[in-house]
Amino acid sequence: MEIRFKPIGYVKTMEKDIPRHWTVSDIEGEIVIDKKYKTGLKDIKAGQRIVVIFYFHKGPGFTDKYLIQKPPHKEKETGLFSTCSPVRPNPIGLSVLDVLEVEENVIYVRGIDMVDGTPVLDIKPYHNE
Amino acid sequence: MEIRFKPIGYVKTMEKDIPRHWTVSDIEGEIVIDKKYKTGLKDIKAGQRIVVIFYFHKGPGFTDKYLIQKPPHKEKETGLFSTCSPVRPNPIGLSVLDVLEVEENVIYVRGIDMVDGTPVLDIKPYHNE
Repeated sequence: MEIRFKPIGYVKTMEKDIPRHWTVSDIEGEIVIDKKYKTGLKDIKAGQRIVVIFYFHKGPGFTDKYLIQKPPHKEKETGLFSTCSPVRPNPIGLSVLDVLEVEENVIYVRGIDMVDGTPVLDIKPYHNE
Repeated sequence: MEIRFKPIGYVKTMEKDIPRHWTVSDIEGEIVIDKKYKTGLKDIKAGQRIVVIFYFHKGPGFTDKYLIQKPPHKEKETGLFSTCSPVRPNPIGLSVLDVLEVEENVIYVRGIDMVDGTPVLDIKPYHNE
């Protein structure tokens, strides 16, 4: 079974020095969504948090040696599925971002931990329960 | 740009009446991961929460009319990216599940809101900050 996705937009940021994770990022930037999906953004408001699902487009290909990895900020070798490493069988990333403003097809956000140009696959409401 | 993923496993549950969302589910089931990725599960422990990213394999194809949807439990027509609808440009789902036990390549979980057989794309640690 093969699943095919196309980006719905991309991440735009001027920052070159990207934090390792959204929980430690106050980098601002934009989520630029394809104009054809603009209507779907209508209930995203400043002050909310959103979940952004993206594609790690710059990682090396996955091989078995990446099943155990040492995250840069940890001492311990860790099972892949307990890390946020970009190198995974399906290189999907997830960040929770603060919405600063929405203008047309662009969501201005804080908390960026993706590099400029990262393809965005989906946006979801954030649930914290 | 086309992105291709393959499932790393699937959801197994006996339950036929699946709740609309993990926040209101206490359904138990299994996340069965391909044995070749078993080593990557080594730090997932009972009592933790995990984020499971999956593929809505049963939804209808996406068309523009789904950019605004009325979630079953809400009064209001809502912009797609503020809903958890399975019908989206890239039909990716996200659930936060409670880990009951891990045995070999199987994670026993509570909180299931996916149907039996749902393809799993990724598992990530849960961050609540």
